[in-house]
Amino acid sequence: MRILVVGGAGFIGSCLCSALIREGHLVICVDNLSRGTEENIELIKKEDRFSFYQVDATRVEEMFGIFEEEKPEYVFHLAANSDIQASARNPEIEYQNTYTTTFQLLQCMRKYEVKKLLFASTSAVYGNKPGSMLDEMASGLSPISYYGAAKLGSEALISAFSYMNDMRSVVFRFPNVIGPYLTHGVIYDFIRKLKKDNSCLEILGDGRQRKPYMYISDLICAILDLMENVKPGMEIYNIGVESTTSVTEIADILCEEMGLDNVRYSYTGGSGGWKGDVPEFQYSLDKIHAIGWKAELTSNEAVRKTIKHILGKESWRQK
Amino acid sequence: MRILVVGGAGFIGSCLCSALIREGHLVICVDNLSRGTEENIELIKKEDRFSFYQVDATRVEEMFGIFEEEKPEYVFHLAANSDIQASARNPEIEYQNTYTTTFQLLQCMRKYEVKKLLFASTSAVYGNKPGSMLDEMASGLSPISYYGAAKLGSEALISAFSYMNDMRSVVFRFPNVIGPYLTHGVIYDFIRKLKKDNSCLEILGDGRQRKPYMYISDLICAILDLMENVKPGMEIYNIGVESTTSVTEIADILCEEMGLDNVRYSYTGGSGGWKGDVPEFQYSLDKIHAIGWKAELTSNEAVRKTIKHILGKESWRQK
Repeated sequence: MRILVVGGAGFIGSCLCSALIREGHLVICVDNLSRGTEENIELIKKEDRFSFYQVDATRVEEMFGIFEEEKPEYVFHLAANSDIQASARNPEIEYQNTYTTTFQLLQCMRKYEVKKLLFASTSAVYGNKPGSMLDEMASGLSPISYYGAAKLGSEALISAFSYMNDMRSVVFRFPNVIGPYLTHGVIYDFIRKLKKDNSCLEILGDGRQRKPYMYISDLICAILDLMENVKPGMEIYNIGVESTTSVTEIADILCEEMGLDNVRYSYTGGSGGWKGDVPEFQYSLDKIHAIGWKAELTSNEAVRKTIKHILGKESWRQK
Repeated sequence: MRILVVGGAGFIGSCLCSALIREGHLVICVDNLSRGTEENIELIKKEDRFSFYQVDATRVEEMFGIFEEEKPEYVFHLAANSDIQASARNPEIEYQNTYTTTFQLLQCMRKYEVKKLLFASTSAVYGNKPGSMLDEMASGLSPISYYGAAKLGSEALISAFSYMNDMRSVVFRFPNVIGPYLTHGVIYDFIRKLKKDNSCLEILGDGRQRKPYMYISDLICAILDLMENVKPGMEIYNIGVESTTSVTEIADILCEEMGLDNVRYSYTGGSGGWKGDVPEFQYSLDKIHAIGWKAELTSNEAVRKTIKHILGKESWRQK
C-alpha cells in the first residue's frame, strides 16, 4: 500500500517508516525536521520504497502537490509538537504544529479522496483525573495543557471529516513512548544531568509522579496489527501498558545501569513536574486487549531497555 | 464592568450588547461584520457606554491594540461561523472563523491577564446520538459537522488556557436560538419560499426532524444570571428548552400566522436536512435548572413569537 507518514522523521515516525517498509509497503515520508532529524531516516533513505519530502504539513499547497504526485492510499498522521514544556511557554506552537497540521492534512485527504487515516493522539486529552480509570468513552474531557487541547481539537476534526467524507479513521491515544532514538523527556534529562554531575540528581516534583512508559516496538506492533482494522467513522483506542513507573524509579534504574551508588536525589517539591503536566493517571486498555493486542514489555522494562540502549550508544562518562 | 463582546454585531451578540448596556455595563463590541451587520447595532451605537471596532478577531495584532486600549475585564466570545451549510462546503470557514478566533482571543486574554470568559458553544459538539439524553458529562463526543468540531476544539482550548492562566470560563452549549433579527435558518427559509410561491412549500428531509428552539430573550436572561457565577477553570452548561418543534410544525405555525390554508408540503425525503445536520436530539437541562434558571417560552412559543415578529416587520406578500 502507498502510505504517507507525516512526521515520519521523528522518533516514533522513523521507527514506523522502517517497519512499514519491512512489511512491504511503499512509504512517503513528510517532515519539516523541526523535531525530526535526517539522522533518524538515514538508513531507510536508501530504500527504493521510501521517499522523503522536507515539507511543513501546514503548507497546504505543497501538500496538495505531494498528494497529487504520490497518490497515497493511507495517511499516518504523527506530526505534532512533542515538547509540552515549550508550548506551555508559547501556545502558538500547538496551534500551528499540532492543530493546523491536522486540519490541513484532512483538507488534503478530502480533496484527493484518501479514505484511511491513522492518528497519533495522546492520553493528555483526558486532562487531570486522578483516581479514575480512563477508558475511551470517559466523559468530561478537559485537557490542562495546550498540547492536550490541540490533540483533542484534532480528534474532533477527524470525527467530523470522517463522517462528512466517508473516511475510516483510527485514533490511538498513547502515553509516553520511549526507545532508542528518544531525544527529550525525563530519561534523556536525567542522563544529561548525571553526565554533568554524577553525585547529585535534581528531580522535578516529589518524584512520585507515576506514568506508564511504553516501548516503541510495542507501539509499532499495535499500529501494524490495527492499521487494516479500520471501520467507517472514527474509532479511538487507548494504547499502552498497564504498569507504571515513578520518576524516582526511573532515577533508580538509571543509577543502577550506570553503576552509580551514591547519587543524592534533590527534589524540587510539589506534585507535578510543571504546569500542564498530568501527575498521575491510569487508563483502561480493555478495548485494545479485546482485539488481541497487548504490550510485551512492562513500563519498568521499557525504561530499563531504553536506558541500556542510550548508554550503549554513547559513552556518557566524560573520561 | 468593562465587557468585550466579540461577535457583538451578530443576531445574538447585538441583543446581548443592548442588555449589558441596560444593566449598566460598559460594552466594547468587536465584529468583522461577516455575518453581523451595522443595522443590528444601529441603536446602541448612540450609547456612551458602547464602542464598536470593525475588526476580525483572528487579527491578533489589532486585537492586542483593543485589549491595550480598552482594558476589558470580561470577554464574551460569540464570534463564529453560524452557517453550518456553508462550512459543509468549505471547512476552512470553521478553521478561521470558529477555531482561530477562539485561539487568538485566548492569546489576548493570556497576554493582558483578563481572567473571565463566557463562550457560546453549541449542542453540535455532541454529534449524532439519537435517543440519548445528553448532559454536560456525556461521553464519546464525536461531532459530525465541521462547525461542531471547531466548537469542541474551542472548548478544549478554553479548558487548557483556563487551567494554565487561572481563568474562569463559562461555556454555554446552546441549540437553535431564534428571535427578531434572525437572518438564516429554517424559519427564514420558509418565509422566503412562501413569498415566492404560497401554494407549495418544499421541506428538506421528511419534516419530522425535531429540535428545541430557544427564544433569544431567554438566552440573554441566562447569560445575565450566570455571568457572575464563574468558578475557577471551565464550567459547561447546556442551555435551552425542554420541548422541541418539528420542521413540519414550523411550517404549520407559519402558514397559520400567514393565514394560508392550502399550502401543499413537498418533502425532499431522508432523515436529515443536509449532511452534518443532527436530525434529532434531546439534552439534559438539569444542571442549569438546578442553579435557578429556566426558559420562559416553549419551543413552539419561541417559533410562533419569532414568526409574528418577522411577519410584522415586513410586508411579505408581494402585493
